[in-house]
Parts: sequence; C-alpha cells; structure tokens
Amino acid sequence: MTRHFEDAPGLCEDADPATEGYVFNQTMMRIKDPERSLDFYTRVMGMRLVRKLKFPEMQFTLYFLAYLDDRQAQSVPSDDGHRTTFTFGREAMLELTHNWGTENDESFAYHNGNDEPQGFGHIGVAVPDVYQAAERFESLGVPFVKRPDDGKMKGLAFIQDPDGYWIEILQPDMLERQRKGE
Amino acid sequence: MTRHFEDAPGLCEDADPATEGYVFNQTMMRIKDPERSLDFYTRVMGMRLVRKLKFPEMQFTLYFLAYLDDRQAQSVPSDDGHRTTFTFGREAMLELTHNWGTENDESFAYHNGNDEPQGFGHIGVAVPDVYQAAERFESLGVPFVKRPDDGKMKGLAFIQDPDGYWIEILQPDMLERQRKGE
Repeated sequence: MTRHFEDAPGLCEDADPATEGYVFNQTMMRIKDPERSLDFYTRVMGMRLVRKLKFPEMQFTLYFLAYLDDRQAQSVPSDDGHRTTFTFGREAMLELTHNWGTENDESFAYHNGNDEPQGFGHIGVAVPDVYQAAERFESLGVPFVKRPDDGKMKGLAFIQDPDGYWIEILQPDMLERQRKGE
Repeated sequence: MTRHFEDAPGLCEDADPATEGYVFNQTMMRIKDPERSLDFYTRVMGMRLVRKLKFPEMQFTLYFLAYLDDRQAQSVPSDDGHRTTFTFGREAMLELTHNWGTENDESFAYHNGNDEPQGFGHIGVAVPDVYQAAERFESLGVPFVKRPDDGKMKGLAFIQDPDGYWIEILQPDMLERQRKGE
C-alpha cells in the first residue's frame, strides 16, 4: 500500500509497479551562448559541468551540470562513456542545449516562458541562507526579478540567468517559519 | 582543488565556497487542469504528490511531485510544515502551478517552449528499459513526439504531458552503448 501525503482530484493512489526505478533526471533549456551560461552556472551558481556532448552532424552541443559535493564528485566516473551513463541516471541534472551559431547573432534571444506566451516558469535552487545568497548575487551584478523582501512572498528571490530564464532562490524552511501548513 | 570533468570556455574551475549546500530543488511548469496533470504524473509517470500548497489570496495552487521509492517515502514527514521544508530541500521536485479557472476556459493553453518562440525544452525521465516504457505509454494512449527508433537518435523517446510539455524518456546507458565518448 503506497503511502499517501495529500488529497487531490486525479491522484492515483498506488504507483504502477511498471514505473519502478524511474528517475526525474533532467531539465533542458536552450542557451544562446555557452561561454556566458557556463560562467554563470559554475562561477555564480556553483554547479559543476559533469558532461559535454557534441553532436557535430546536428550542429549542437549539450552541457550537463549538477550540484555535487566533494564526496559525490569523487564518485563521478573518469571514463567518458561511464560518465555519460552516470549523467543520464542521476537526479537533478541541468541540461543546457547550444545550437551552434546563435551566440554570433546579435538579435537572437530565447523565450523564458514567463513573458507571453507563458508555460515553463523557472528552475529553483535551495540555499542555506536566502538573504546571504541574494546579497552575493547582488554584488556579482546578477539581475533580480524579485528580491527576498519584495512583494507578498517574503524570504524568496527570483534572479535571471544570462538568457533571462528565472531561477527561484529559496530557503527550505522559509514557508514553515511563515505559516502552519494548509 | 575541485575535480574537473570537461573543458569548455567560461568554466569556473573552483566552486565558490559561498555556494556550498546549494541544491537544484525544482522545475516549475504551469498547468491548465490539475486533475488531468495529477492523473498523468501519478498514474502514467509513477510520481508521488509530496506537497500541495494553496494560495487563495493569489488564486493559485502549487503541486510538488517527486519519485520516491518506499524507503524514501517512509522518511517524508507527516507534519505539513515539516513536509513543506522537506519539499523545498530535496533535489528533483517537479512543481506544477495551477492558476485557478484556466481549466474552465476551453481555448486556454500553455506554451511548451518547443513551438516558437523557443526556450525551455523538456524534462527528462530515466527508465530501466526505454522500449518497455514506450510500449506501456503507447498502450495508455500517451502522445509521442518521437518513438524510440524514430530519427537519428535511437533508443530515446519524447512523449507529451497533458499540456503538451515534452518529456524525454531515456535509458541511462543508451549513449554509452551506441558510441565511445567524445
């Protein structure tokens, strides 16, 4: 019997055993310029580039980034093939797709999903201290959509990556401290 | 000294210690109708609804889903506040945002990021056997963008969720078996 946390219409009570071993592996966003995006996601956000896959015949490169602590980083395979398999088996990989040449087209820009037409909203990064993180982003010149104390939702921020995609910066206990459940 | 896996322009060699403890927590997509999306993500995809957060004053509800095996499910807090903190601290949460009322507007639809204007591409789910998974999706009537053997990239599929968002279905060792690294 599957343990159940919330009620909602549409909810299936018991997971189909056929889905056992499924992993939410990746989130893919297209990027205009890999140099500025890799700088942002590694230097500013602290992620690591785990795998880079070039597809010359289709003129694109994929960059797979993740948060890895030192212990996790030690377990990443050195062998390229094994590291590819590691990349596709792990949770929470950020996949950045670069279609070659877009970085040289001054007028080229991707759509962030929050301007019309809307759809995808954001990725979110949990941090130990949202005010400290926001102060650092500010000092690094990162653009904000919302600072931690703007608007009704205190204690969470939204910044923008180099393509304008939104990144929510949140502290895991922010809501628990502000309210008592539903 | 940070361990380094790939070379690429823009890459920062050493993660800033200020980013220690950062977690890629969530990916947010807007959905038109929570009943059909929860049915799809729990019954078809096998995810679990970990937390539901209603914001009546702003007329929206957030649904947070994850893959949890039985052991992980046992460790999810029963207390609503603690479960909220668990939800915001964990990797690989799928956040579905429902703005109330869209489900009753026949002409309403979200943008999936792959039709123009492009940006966000897809989420991706790793499965133990991509052909078996695809056969099951087929039998459940899930729409495909690409079946596992369509096109140049064999052994991976793309399906669509009820809003038309793309979900890549992949097998972690698919590329390693097909090619030897870069």
